[in-house]
Order: sequence, then structure tokens, then C-alpha cells
Amino acid sequence: MSIFDVAVWKEGKVRMMDQRALPHEEIYLEFTSAQEVAQAIRSMVVRGAPAIGCAAAFGMAVEAFRLAAQGRPDSWPLAMAEGIAHLRESRPTAINLAWAIERLRPLLEGGDPDQVPERLLREAEAIRQEDIASCRAMGRLGADILPLSANRSISLLTHCNAGALATAGYGTALGVIRAATQRFAQVKVYASETRPYLQGARLTAWELLKDGIDTTLITDNMAGHLISRGMVEAVVVGADRVAANGDAANKIGTYPLSVLAQRHRIPFLVVCPLSTIDLATTTGADIPIEERPAEEVTHCLGRRTAAQGVQVFNPAFDVTPAELITALVTERAVVHAPNTEKVAALFHGLPGHPGR
Amino acid sequence: MSIFDVAVWKEGKVRMMDQRALPHEEIYLEFTSAQEVAQAIRSMVVRGAPAIGCAAAFGMAVEAFRLAAQGRPDSWPLAMAEGIAHLRESRPTAINLAWAIERLRPLLEGGDPDQVPERLLREAEAIRQEDIASCRAMGRLGADILPLSANRSISLLTHCNAGALATAGYGTALGVIRAATQRFAQVKVYASETRPYLQGARLTAWELLKDGIDTTLITDNMAGHLISRGMVEAVVVGADRVAANGDAANKIGTYPLSVLAQRHRIPFLVVCPLSTIDLATTTGADIPIEERPAEEVTHCLGRRTAAQGVQVFNPAFDVTPAELITALVTERAVVHAPNTEKVAALFHGLPGHPGR
Repeated sequence: MSIFDVAVWKEGKVRMMDQRALPHEEIYLEFTSAQEVAQAIRSMVVRGAPAIGCAAAFGMAVEAFRLAAQGRPDSWPLAMAEGIAHLRESRPTAINLAWAIERLRPLLEGGDPDQVPERLLREAEAIRQEDIASCRAMGRLGADILPLSANRSISLLTHCNAGALATAGYGTALGVIRAATQRFAQVKVYASETRPYLQGARLTAWELLKDGIDTTLITDNMAGHLISRGMVEAVVVGADRVAANGDAANKIGTYPLSVLAQRHRIPFLVVCPLSTIDLATTTGADIPIEERPAEEVTHCLGRRTAAQGVQVFNPAFDVTPAELITALVTERAVVHAPNTEKVAALFHGLPGHPGR
Repeated sequence: MSIFDVAVWKEGKVRMMDQRALPHEEIYLEFTSAQEVAQAIRSMVVRGAPAIGCAAAFGMAVEAFRLAAQGRPDSWPLAMAEGIAHLRESRPTAINLAWAIERLRPLLEGGDPDQVPERLLREAEAIRQEDIASCRAMGRLGADILPLSANRSISLLTHCNAGALATAGYGTALGVIRAATQRFAQVKVYASETRPYLQGARLTAWELLKDGIDTTLITDNMAGHLISRGMVEAVVVGADRVAANGDAANKIGTYPLSVLAQRHRIPFLVVCPLSTIDLATTTGADIPIEERPAEEVTHCLGRRTAAQGVQVFNPAFDVTPAELITALVTERAVVHAPNTEKVAALFHGLPGHPGR
């Protein structure tokens, strides 16, 4: 299994692979303040809901160490407010960002104030470790429900990058695909390139090929042809935020895949940790959809593609309604045909989570 | 209305705008043999089913003039066989290519053999003029059936380029959009960029903006979001070949739009001349789907997007089943909910067409 430093702590700094340079170069960047980490999230150095959660947690830790180096603040909550605001505003759709911040925030008060930076760092590292463990659990649970054919081969379609690069490691949707390679004699993956930012072409293809997984690239608009010709046996994607009723926001282009999967009666799996589920968001209609700069659409890798003067609409996510989701795969359980009751039941017996 | 020399006769040569250079440059190229024209079609100097038909017809004419300049051949059919074969094999899906060749082929025999080049040229020019007239008729008929709102505004989505650049002029789907600007106070067009070849970003945006039409560019995977949010009132596309039962092959990515249109109950219009309908092809399953080079998918405008070593699947077209087509708009009539009987009825009373 491929391991990359997606968002880690190294020698007092937050270290992240610059995903903007992939697949051409493997560059690592280091950050020493919450504001720098927020800018890295905004500019897509790191992306993917769970990875953004880890990055934000380490961003809080590095901010606390930075402040402590200037002399311990009288009020940690006050001193951290600006850095936290930067992190919180860096991207609006992925709920893991707010989830990680809310998980660390209570540590700013109570206990020895001199220990706040260390406490934040321990919790950030715990989030990272839990995320890897969650991905492995999701992989196992998701692979369990893939349709098993007589010859133990399977052809899967994934969109964007819900992989090791989108998490602390192993991946959500790509975790299921990695686990599938242990169960099936032959796993064929179709990866859609995911315009405008090309996470499929640049990231998913890169990390699957590193693991020797049979990967075929298509443009986003080819999925309908493949599915209609019986070339895909299941669609497996991640999520950036799942509402209380099971509606799932994920990378733009996910929703059409769910409509095609329903029409052609193949399973549509959404794979995400509990930290991506936001019980405070009632339905998908309440999920804020980030709009990104026009240049992403009028250009490709910095080269202008489009006629001058054209207007642009660039929503970064769409919402797949729960009714089109065959199963929601989390680290705790698989929820078939998700709805409000079943999603709520996932949290029974768990300690309180922010956002519920 | 924008006029470009998509495929015309000029001073003994076939003159075509090099659509590969758009939107950055307006370059014209000239061709003096059928083989050169075939290569221009294959390499996408000219594309779009009706435009390819015109180009092939002029390609036959220029080949005949070239042969005549070397001394009139004993047998025109024999002498032209190689050039015709090149043209016929240049692209497999658009039936207009074969249609134009079959329309000119009878002119190779009978009458004064010395007049063959002139006869071919007159017929090619007739095809070109008829295509422009057909586009204008389709525009009127298509605009007639667009949903008219109280405030006389409409928001339309089109895919690829079924415009002036894809025809002898005015366009099929974009002809309907041009006609709509005469009927509606406000026409808003969403154009999907159409990876891998970017006909939407490069060509549709370019020609609609030339006509001052309100145009917004999206990536192909954004259509589902727009349609689900009620931002699109009808989808209007062209076709490369329509089977006898009404199934329509069009640019890859068209089929998913038809599935989305059905789910959200908006009209899905396929606009094409009778020359695009192939009664010899029973259903969409019988339409050959061209697969194009892998580099189109692994690159964008010559820059590599994808991880090295990834496999590629690059079908250039998909098939929309007749059941998802609200109306087939031709120059002769609009066929609502097309099926084999209604499609056959379009040809009643017409002189014999090749392919029927």
C-alpha cells in the first residue's frame, strides 16, 4: 500500500505533499502557521475531506506552537481565534474541516495552559491515526458488499480522488478498491479524469498505478457509455459531506453517476468516515456548494481552452440524494438505502461528536 | 449570423477553416485531393456530421479535377475508387460522410465523361446550400417546440458543437438556439466543454459569442448539478447518426444528459438533417462507435494531464436511446417520441436516399 505524507507532523512543522504538482513531481511543503495551512487547503496543496480534516488539526497544533514560542498567551481561545477562522473559512463544503476544529477546540481550555500545544498535537495525531484505521475498516466493509461474480473479477468506476491522497492514508473509495484486490482475482478500475481539477487523471491514476492496480482513464462524460454497455459493475465514490438524511455532497460529476447507476441497476457506494457525516445538516439542499475560480474551467493545466469572453459557472460539488445511494459505507457499519433513522443509528453509543 | 468557410470551394480547391486552431486563431487551409481532404477529416480540421458530408462531397469534386488535369480517365468509377475509399474510411460514425459519397457516386457514370468534375462540384455545392437551408428550417421548427415561459426567457444546455462550424452554416442544435434568440426576450446557453477535444469550450463558446449570445461554459460533469437545480429548461444537441428506430449517436457525453433530462422532466431535443438518419442501421447498437487515440485523454491541449502508464478508453460517441428523446427535429418535420414508424414516415414522398 502506498504511503505518502498527505498531512503529517515533522520536526515542529506541518508537512504536506503538494498535490498540485502531481503526477509530474513529488514535492513536499512545510507550514508553520494556521494561516499558511489554511492557504494550502484553499489552494489545493491538500484536498479530500478527511485529509483536510487532518491538515486543519495539525494547522491548529502548529499555530499553538507558534504562539507559545512568542510567549504563552493569556487566553488560548482568544489567541487561536484568528488562525481557527482562517482554517474554517478555507473551504466550505467538506465538513471534516469543521469537525476536526471542533474536536480540538475544547483542548484550548482547562488543564495546564502550557501543555496546550502538545495536547493539540496529540489529538491531531490521533485524528490521523484513526483516519487510517477507519479507511482500512471501510475498505473491508465495502469490499464485503461488492457483487461477487463467478470468475471473481470485477470492474469498478470511481470519480475524483477518494484515495490515500484524500485521507491520512489508504483512502475511502480507493480503500474499498484496495481491499477488493485482496478478494477478487481481477479488479479493473475506471477512473474519470475529473475536470476541472483533474484529480482522477492526476491523483487517482497515480496512486492506483503505484499499487499496481489495473487502471483505465476516461473523461468524465464517458461513464454513461461504459455503464450502458455493461462495462462497470459498481460505482464507488467518496463524500465531502453527508447530510442527516443520507444525501451526499461529493465532487462535481458524482450525481450523474448515481443517476446512471440507478438506470442500469448497478450498486452505487458512497464511502466515508463518520467524521464526514453532519447531523446538523438536515438534507443535501442545506449543504453549501463551493464555487471556485472561473480560470479552472477556461483553462486546463494553465493553458487557455475556452473562447475569450465566455462566462463560467464552476460549482465544485454536487449532491447525490440518498435514494440513489445503494449503500453508505462507514468505518462502523454499512448503511443500505440510507435514510435519517439509519444514519442516526450509526452514532448510537458513540461519545458526542460536534455537529450532531 | 456568423459565416465561416467551414468547407467551401474556392478557386479550384477545397477551403476549410482549421478548427483545431480555434478559438485562438482563425486559419484557413486548402486541399487539392480526396486523400488530403480525408486526412483533414480524420485529423479534425473539420468535424460535425453535416460539415463532414460537405467536405467529403467537395473532396470528391477536387479529386475529379485533379484526375482530369492528368488526362481524363477511361473509367471514372475506377479512377475515383481510391480517393473515395480514403474519404469513406476517414471517420466511421457520422453517416453524412457515406451519404454524401453515395449521392455523388451516380454522377461518375452516364452523360459526358468530360463533364464529371463539374457535375460533382455542382452537386457538392447543392449539398452545401441545402444544408444551410435545412439548418434554418430545423432552427425554426426546433424553436417552435421550446417551452415558452411567461417572461419569455429560456435557459438551454448544449453539448459539443452542433453549430455553424459543424454544418455548412447556422448549425443544427445551435441553429435552434439562434432561432430561439428571435422568439425569446432572453436566451441563456450553457455549453459543456466536451472533453477530450473541447469542442464546447473552443468552438461553441466561440461561435455563440460571435453572435452575441449569452453563453456560460461548464465542464461536462456539471450538467447534473445544473439540471437538478432547475437551471436548465431544455437540452438541445446534434447527432452523428440516427438509427431507423430513432436511437441517436452523438458526441460522447450526450447519453448521460438524456438520462438527466428524463429524471428532471425537461425536453431533450436531437436536431439533425435527414442526411444524418440512416435507415439501414436498425438500432443504436448497430452504430459503429469510433475510438480515438489515447493521447486525447491523457493530454489536454498538448499538455500531459495523466499519470504515466495509465490505460485509456476513448470512445468518441455514445448512443441515446429513442425512448429518452423528447423530439427529433429535422428540416422536414419534428418527430415527437421517435420510433421506427415515425422515422420512416419522415422520408415518405422523398426521392430515394442512399442508406434506405
